[in-house]
Amino acid sequence: MGLTLELARLVADARSQDIDDAALTAAGLGFMDTIATAFAGAHEDASQKALAFARKRSIADSGLCALPWLPDALPASLAALVFGTAAHALDFDDVALSGHPSAVLVPSILCEGLATRRSGRTCLEAYVIGYQVWAELFRREPDPLHTKGWHPTAAYGVLAASAAIAYMRQTNAHDIATTLAVAASLSSGLVSNFGTMTKPLHAGRAASLAFEANEYTSLGLTASHDALEHDSGFVNAISPEGRADRLSPILRGGAWQISRHGLCIKQYPVCYGAHRAIDGAIDLATAYDIQFEDVVRVGVGLGRSQLAMLRNNSPKTGLEAKFSIQFAIAAAMDQRSVSLSQLTDEYVTRPHIQNFYEKVDTWCIEEPDPGDPTFSRYDEVRIDLKDRQTLHSGDVLYPRGHAENPVTAESLQKKFDDCLQRFAAEEKLATGRVSRLDPDALFVKLGAMAACEDVSFLFIQ
Amino acid sequence: MGLTLELARLVADARSQDIDDAALTAAGLGFMDTIATAFAGAHEDASQKALAFARKRSIADSGLCALPWLPDALPASLAALVFGTAAHALDFDDVALSGHPSAVLVPSILCEGLATRRSGRTCLEAYVIGYQVWAELFRREPDPLHTKGWHPTAAYGVLAASAAIAYMRQTNAHDIATTLAVAASLSSGLVSNFGTMTKPLHAGRAASLAFEANEYTSLGLTASHDALEHDSGFVNAISPEGRADRLSPILRGGAWQISRHGLCIKQYPVCYGAHRAIDGAIDLATAYDIQFEDVVRVGVGLGRSQLAMLRNNSPKTGLEAKFSIQFAIAAAMDQRSVSLSQLTDEYVTRPHIQNFYEKVDTWCIEEPDPGDPTFSRYDEVRIDLKDRQTLHSGDVLYPRGHAENPVTAESLQKKFDDCLQRFAAEEKLATGRVSRLDPDALFVKLGAMAACEDVSFLFIQ
Repeated sequence: MGLTLELARLVADARSQDIDDAALTAAGLGFMDTIATAFAGAHEDASQKALAFARKRSIADSGLCALPWLPDALPASLAALVFGTAAHALDFDDVALSGHPSAVLVPSILCEGLATRRSGRTCLEAYVIGYQVWAELFRREPDPLHTKGWHPTAAYGVLAASAAIAYMRQTNAHDIATTLAVAASLSSGLVSNFGTMTKPLHAGRAASLAFEANEYTSLGLTASHDALEHDSGFVNAISPEGRADRLSPILRGGAWQISRHGLCIKQYPVCYGAHRAIDGAIDLATAYDIQFEDVVRVGVGLGRSQLAMLRNNSPKTGLEAKFSIQFAIAAAMDQRSVSLSQLTDEYVTRPHIQNFYEKVDTWCIEEPDPGDPTFSRYDEVRIDLKDRQTLHSGDVLYPRGHAENPVTAESLQKKFDDCLQRFAAEEKLATGRVSRLDPDALFVKLGAMAACEDVSFLFIQ
Repeated sequence: MGLTLELARLVADARSQDIDDAALTAAGLGFMDTIATAFAGAHEDASQKALAFARKRSIADSGLCALPWLPDALPASLAALVFGTAAHALDFDDVALSGHPSAVLVPSILCEGLATRRSGRTCLEAYVIGYQVWAELFRREPDPLHTKGWHPTAAYGVLAASAAIAYMRQTNAHDIATTLAVAASLSSGLVSNFGTMTKPLHAGRAASLAFEANEYTSLGLTASHDALEHDSGFVNAISPEGRADRLSPILRGGAWQISRHGLCIKQYPVCYGAHRAIDGAIDLATAYDIQFEDVVRVGVGLGRSQLAMLRNNSPKTGLEAKFSIQFAIAAAMDQRSVSLSQLTDEYVTRPHIQNFYEKVDTWCIEEPDPGDPTFSRYDEVRIDLKDRQTLHSGDVLYPRGHAENPVTAESLQKKFDDCLQRFAAEEKLATGRVSRLDPDALFVKLGAMAACEDVSFLFIQ
């Protein structure tokens, strides 16, 4: 039995009782974080374009979803399009498997769950299943998809989310294989569009296309049950060097993949390649009470791919600053944090921030992270001060919020609150109305999501 | 200026008076052939699934199109989805540039033209422009996309059709660059789904996504103006070996690409890899008046990719028979033609046809066609008869209907009539009603398309 059928069988055979609390807890983190970042990103340009696209469309026989950051209810697949785009619009959503699994999985699952009034537990289980499919595809590819041009979040996302929806609908293995094969033929999204509104749209489209793949199957469309592993199939088509493992059986037994890899909750709304260095800089600034004006030079060691992603040496806008190590270090030294309130054109162009950029040097750490070849094994920060003292961060292995350096309850809630505050401020600006949303109540409900019988309950005020 | 901007500039600068009659005539052939194959394929399963998908959807502010083979008018982009799927459903639509340009371009252009009541000439011009963009992308890639897994019709089609629609809308160069970049991020479609209903859906989706790419641009979505040629861009992402030319300037001056490459009008509703051999067999059978029962053996020399595509040695169904050289030769010897009426399960399983398969041997001709590496330089057929005579076709270079061996007016009309007859028969079967369509009148109108002021006129009975 080949990969396509094996994955279909995995999804069809999965039973509620097989999914343990550790896996559900990890999935819950994904819902919490993605809902927060979707609120924060709801008023971003990309999200508003996706919303305008969605509002022109209607779909017969489709359940409607009301999402609290959207003005009106939409058919589930269109709600997922807007939700996924908003969740990814600020690049502040969680990271795992060299991609952003929750920005695709959570919108698909929650929109399906809201439209069909499923339980919180079912939604969490569907996430564990979708993540499992994603991880199974990810582990087969030794080379970073980015180098060939495929955006992993979009490319893997549509397959994983299709599987998650199929799990929720209790689809049989034959039809799931068809759905995965159709989903593989819908998969798309280019790295060359990073840094534009099309990037977050990739996540939204992947979430939405998962509904289409399931719909085509239910209409009786046929597709190849070896569409993933075939010589001219999905795994090879997106493979940078054609070195992917298309033949070995899928992993069975042991812990769910989400319990092995977990989710990395971003603490800073900038490119993940800068996060370890930001931690190093903040820790030194705090430990030695470094004053901004006392810094003479900052040296940062980063991996090669990270340096390539962080390509803006002297950013002039909030969007450019997201991909600048110079900005990240300047902001960290200035406020001992890197937050949404700093990612504005106004803050980025303040003279003391702009003047700091030339103080930042970088060098390349060639040794790759054995768990994720997109990163170096460690990053490091060295700060030279006016008094000729030099401070060194040591090797920073895992940024705060990484699955191996887990997010604290406190910082999770702080991120949630920051995101919802941003939403409230922008909602007021856009509509003149004060949002009636109670962030604390929502945070508590999401924390207890596994126990809720109908996820619609989450958003009822 | 890079490829994305150069192509955008080409489309924005194109003027009606620059497009010569030879190019328009070639484009007209594409419309004629695609409309015929869409009629013939309208009742195929894949087309019916696409129709069911489309009929559930509506789009505000979208012009509606009525197509004579569809029961009701649909928004232009959804009509294009169904039209493209129907045109490609029988694999009987025209061929060029190692793909099926018309199955994507004609549905996009004609649905836009019908929805906005454009002239026949504007539609023909848009085809020339779309083909130009397709050819410019095609010529840069030395390796067959099929080997990596990307379906060229789907992958290039969405870009070419996006350009064609942008031309019709007189979009400016900046916005066309955005549209091409968005289209590149929507491009998808896997070879591993060949032989299933998902394959023709690729063509329909590409035609439909071209509307989405234009719509997102008009909503103000941003995308990278180097999305095609960037290291992590479209051209490299789909390139089998990464050997594509991303840097050389686009071709300017001289004849339009459609006048160089033309369109190959398929004479037989089977895989194009079998067409030269079918011609060789029919010509021998006719010249020597060979009786079916006198044939002892048939040897066929074909290229390596052709042999791989023609993978069914002993087909049992009409769909399998489309990809069988054994069936193609049996049918050609039996009736001195290969036609839609033979591509039925009933005909394929007739004992004398089934028994013939083992008489067919194949060998591989390694020398590639310098104009198209998917094919060998020539194919050949050798027939051994009962009387120990052996007949040889010689090298068959271009099948009948190939741009270098152009379709005759007579055989074009015969194909058109066959396709419309098939539609009428299936329409009667499905609805019980006799179609009121007049094929002769439609054929005449399509022949005079360049002169029609509003393409809606084509389909008014």
